Amino acid sequence: MTNNLRVAVVGAGRMGADHIDRLHTRIVGATVSAVVDIDAERASAAAARVPAAQTFATAAEAYASGTVDAVLLATPGFLHEEALFEALERDIPIFCEKPLTPDAESAWRVIEAEQALGHQRIQVGFMRRFDADYAQLGSIISGGTLGDLLMLHCRHRNPSTPDGFTNEMLINDSVVHEFDAVRYLTGEEITSVQVRLGKASRRARNGQHDPQQVLMETASGVLVDVEIFVNAQFGYEVSTQASLEEGIVDIGADHGPVTRTAGRVGGAVTPGFEDRFGAAYDHEIQSWVDAALRGEIGGPTAWDGYATAACCEAGVRAQSTGEKVTVTLKEKPELYR
Amino acid sequence: MTNNLRVAVVGAGRMGADHIDRLHTRIVGATVSAVVDIDAERASAAAARVPAAQTFATAAEAYASGTVDAVLLATPGFLHEEALFEALERDIPIFCEKPLTPDAESAWRVIEAEQALGHQRIQVGFMRRFDADYAQLGSIISGGTLGDLLMLHCRHRNPSTPDGFTNEMLINDSVVHEFDAVRYLTGEEITSVQVRLGKASRRARNGQHDPQQVLMETASGVLVDVEIFVNAQFGYEVSTQASLEEGIVDIGADHGPVTRTAGRVGGAVTPGFEDRFGAAYDHEIQSWVDAALRGEIGGPTAWDGYATAACCEAGVRAQSTGEKVTVTLKEKPELYR
Amino acid sequence: MTNNLRVAVVGAGRMGADHIDRLHTRIVGATVSAVVDIDAERASAAAARVPAAQTFATAAEAYASGTVDAVLLATPGFLHEEALFEALERDIPIFCEKPLTPDAESAWRVIEAEQALGHQRIQVGFMRRFDADYAQLGSIISGGTLGDLLMLHCRHRNPSTPDGFTNEMLINDSVVHEFDAVRYLTGEEITSVQVRLGKASRRARNGQHDPQQVLMETASGVLVDVEIFVNAQFGYEVSTQASLEEGIVDIGADHGPVTRTAGRVGGAVTPGFEDRFGAAYDHEIQSWVDAALRGEIGGPTAWDGYATAACCEAGVRAQSTGEKVTVTLKEKPELYR
Amino acid sequence: MTNNLRVAVVGAGRMGADHIDRLHTRIVGATVSAVVDIDAERASAAAARVPAAQTFATAAEAYASGTVDAVLLATPGFLHEEALFEALERDIPIFCEKPLTPDAESAWRVIEAEQALGHQRIQVGFMRRFDADYAQLGSIISGGTLGDLLMLHCRHRNPSTPDGFTNEMLINDSVVHEFDAVRYLTGEEITSVQVRLGKASRRARNGQHDPQQVLMETASGVLVDVEIFVNAQFGYEVSTQASLEEGIVDIGADHGPVTRTAGRVGGAVTPGFEDRFGAAYDHEIQSWVDAALRGEIGGPTAWDGYATAACCEAGVRAQSTGEKVTVTLKEKPELYR
Repeated sequence: MTNNLRVAVVGAGRMGADHIDRLHTRIVGATVSAVVDIDAERASAAAARVPAAQTFATAAEAYASGTVDAVLLATPGFLHEEALFEALERDIPIFCEKPLTPDAESAWRVIEAEQALGHQRIQVGFMRRFDADYAQLGSIISGGTLGDLLMLHCRHRNPSTPDGFTNEMLINDSVVHEFDAVRYLTGEEITSVQVRLGKASRRARNGQHDPQQVLMETASGVLVDVEIFVNAQFGYEVSTQASLEEGIVDIGADHGPVTRTAGRVGGAVTPGFEDRFGAAYDHEIQSWVDAALRGEIGGPTAWDGYATAACCEAGVRAQSTGEKVTVTLKEKPELYR
Repeated sequence: MTNNLRVAVVGAGRMGADHIDRLHTRIVGATVSAVVDIDAERASAAAARVPAAQTFATAAEAYASGTVDAVLLATPGFLHEEALFEALERDIPIFCEKPLTPDAESAWRVIEAEQALGHQRIQVGFMRRFDADYAQLGSIISGGTLGDLLMLHCRHRNPSTPDGFTNEMLINDSVVHEFDAVRYLTGEEITSVQVRLGKASRRARNGQHDPQQVLMETASGVLVDVEIFVNAQFGYEVSTQASLEEGIVDIGADHGPVTRTAGRVGGAVTPGFEDRFGAAYDHEIQSWVDAALRGEIGGPTAWDGYATAACCEAGVRAQSTGEKVTVTLKEKPELYR
Repeated sequence: MTNNLRVAVVGAGRMGADHIDRLHTRIVGATVSAVVDIDAERASAAAARVPAAQTFATAAEAYASGTVDAVLLATPGFLHEEALFEALERDIPIFCEKPLTPDAESAWRVIEAEQALGHQRIQVGFMRRFDADYAQLGSIISGGTLGDLLMLHCRHRNPSTPDGFTNEMLINDSVVHEFDAVRYLTGEEITSVQVRLGKASRRARNGQHDPQQVLMETASGVLVDVEIFVNAQFGYEVSTQASLEEGIVDIGADHGPVTRTAGRVGGAVTPGFEDRFGAAYDHEIQSWVDAALRGEIGGPTAWDGYATAACCEAGVRAQSTGEKVTVTLKEKPELYR
Repeated sequence: MTNNLRVAVVGAGRMGADHIDRLHTRIVGATVSAVVDIDAERASAAAARVPAAQTFATAAEAYASGTVDAVLLATPGFLHEEALFEALERDIPIFCEKPLTPDAESAWRVIEAEQALGHQRIQVGFMRRFDADYAQLGSIISGGTLGDLLMLHCRHRNPSTPDGFTNEMLINDSVVHEFDAVRYLTGEEITSVQVRLGKASRRARNGQHDPQQVLMETASGVLVDVEIFVNAQFGYEVSTQASLEEGIVDIGADHGPVTRTAGRVGGAVTPGFEDRFGAAYDHEIQSWVDAALRGEIGGPTAWDGYATAACCEAGVRAQSTGEKVTVTLKEKPELYR
């Protein structure tokens, strides 16, 4: 391997196309050498801007071409397990968009396979860890000058959802980021999950109960509450307030020009996650490329993928039962300590 | 009664002395004519600044003096019931500091006595209703332009507590304000209360579990969470964030000069409730005086006192059981509709 | 004199009526005993709410009635000199709305008359000194922990002006407050004034050049710039930024609920000076009443009125010449030191 | 030329080393092929991280090596003229750090040389145009929905200055950015410059008069004031407030977590220009690389360099005379329209 990582992007949908664009125009040290999608037309469209990229129907064909040093998985989650095994067998750096796999059991099989390999190869796409606000909040908490962390109040709000965004996706696709962020900020595992369903917005889509409140506890007893509100209309917001023994810290405020006109003072609300986390996505992939060139992992590991899969399972069960659901993890393997 | 209300202040402790000062120096239309306290020295000290005020050991003596048009009760809550009956018998305007009485059963007896009288005489001291921020938030919610209210996230933080401030007082003296504020902002009764005890601050006093999270539901299903944190060190904060169908509204931010020096930008945190709600206290008593001179009530009624007493009872039980406790109220009498 | 100050309000226009309402409903320790206006109908209208007040055509008649302990002058500025002399002769407490008189020469005659009396009797209506923000900024500057003050950047913006608001009034009625605020914040006299006329808004009324920039220097060399913009449309703003050797301080931000809806985050802009400075007006008059009952002055003195009159004269000249105009004051009499 | 631009960086001091790092690690589409510095040791140190880069003592030698498609000039300004002529002769894309040259006369000679070439080759390093805040403010102003721009209030504050930072550098190195920003935001040339020297901070270095206030006028009469304060201690700030006919717009506020602890609410002040404008520098160079590969200019042109040089000359003269100095530009050549 030279100092240029030749990456196969598997899955040429919205997220895959976005990563191809990122690797091609903003990430130094990597080249998109292969675009893999069962839909040939979609693969060609996504590869069009990248002269060096070939298209393939399967990852196996891409690997066989001899042009692939590393793989980025951007297919739907239910396809991840098989693709991960295939890549682990080749022992190449893997960037796996979240979730690692859709449930804790399959995630654990991935953990076992990576352990069998004897070294870490999988980085999971929890990009908040690369956001400056989260990183600074994490430093403040772990720095200890404000005492122990006691509570986290989280907001996760989208302006609206596409058709077909179900109650389960609300946990598995949205709250999953909060699960990882809570684990990252506290440095602890989550021990229980509970979901409160109150008054629903008339803006909620068919079958959704929106907003919901997700309550968690961590190993040391930190209480967490999340407002997940995916049809909040006003804009996009991901913010967190931390209550510590000696002070309160807020992250996630809005930016840009402040205008006063016609009796109102204010600024623009972040319109979507691309605006809020665009730089974080770039940092995440750059970190993965840099680490991969050194044979290392540059972010969340397969263990993080497994632990959040267990939280999602508990969350979905809590959502339907209204009860507090305990989260029990297997013992953390040596490889991830 | 002339256009000057002669007020007997019963209870010359901290709160009573504060109300005497307020009536004497800032409230127009009222005079402190009597200061009542079983402790003669304390009564004299509190009355010292008010030339026109006589001191008495009991309210009965003050009433007998013929100098009292109205009464302000500032004794501890467990003394309220008897004092309220005594004043209702005389059919005079009553300002009763919160709580109305310490429990729902005794509060209901007061309701019955006022109903027997046939008109409202009691105003309860929930002064947040006189705070500009709460009033504006109430207007925004009831105005309806942002759709229905769905969730309320409340923060109630004090820098520290005096010795002897117990877990029960945390509900009965602090969260009681949130109970009334939620009822005021939603226009609905609270139907259940739950308390989460997580990691406690090492700054908590003996026997306290601090912070706590109080969860509520209202009649229409609005979900409410309160962080009550009475040893939060940094300063005083009472703030609320409302999630509505079409937008989010925040109240309770800090005021005053913003300074940038030595790498920090910021301002002063509100140091205590006097600074945050001083003007609200003045408005509250002025409103009571003005209404009393017209033979009316200028704020929260005995019903509000009863309903919050029922919430406090549920809150204390929820605190010790960890269960969700249902709040059941008697039917609202015609007098309070 | 008892501990109730019987006040004659001279001038029953908008400002006079406002002060009558304030004294009657919000100020403790004073009664409006006389309302003086040459227009009998206007006097009666303003006195209607105050049972104890009599109406008079002239101040002399009011004084002759034996019901006047003190006088509040709310007539136009050009009538102040004579009314001040009349009140000084009677040696009673005088609250004089700004300006003291319309020019430095007549203001100096008032200074001489008060000196002849041997004690101060006149308080001038510069109410910003009673605003919490200005008071705090003044304390920060004089406290010295941020080093010496170097520059002041001031904004004075109104949504729009009534017909007939001339360029001269822009200095004499609006910037006059900045002249006093600069003197108050720096503790120094202003030594020069300059006015820059650039691009004018199409919203400016006939004959106005709006906005303008007023530049000042103080005795120690503090540089001041004021944007005076009286047709700024968006709302009302009076704010100041101070540059000190060790830090920057801002006052004058907007308050109240912050709303996020439809892609915007923001709050309400202060709509007018009543909202921004309403409490300051109350504090100002209460301070005057309290001091008057002790035979003292509770705020800006006649010297402050004289010094700002000299600044206004310089400002109007600077406005028409475009030159820097020096402000020269007579030596400050012992009485005002 | 392929789709990879081989860049010679001339000048391996702080700014040059920074650009080398940027091109090597963050900019896609370019490679540092040559590092030029008369100081061989400095050239080697700066080139150490870049395997592909050769070092040279002069630009001529670098050009002769046949490895250079484009040049980035990061030497001191007084060396720019000759280097620009040398590069223009070779007709290659040139990125020239500001200033174009140190004075208007030499800048005009560069303009003439580029005109003789018949197409634009020079982009000048005014990186604020690539900052999101400035770009948004520019859009708001040119969009016209808030009416015409009337005034600009600018702040340019550094925590402190290195030894040897003179009064002239304060104009030529710091205010020069404001000159370009004003031209960018107004879309007009600056017609006069004036400098006010008031009270100086005791933190000012030997020979500096700090802070200063720079006043400008633009062609249509927009008034501009700049506080330039290079020993402001508290941190770094570049902010602008625009007064338009229908509203006020602010840019430049601070970011990051907001903490409440020990009676203070606040966040971190931007510590330096790298933090405030780091992303802008990246965007600027990427824009130049992208445009250069297309044979175009991606930012400020030589005309912008000439016009700001004329402003700097006027500024330095205004600083020493205290007078308003008119800025007169030659007619804008067709090439830059």
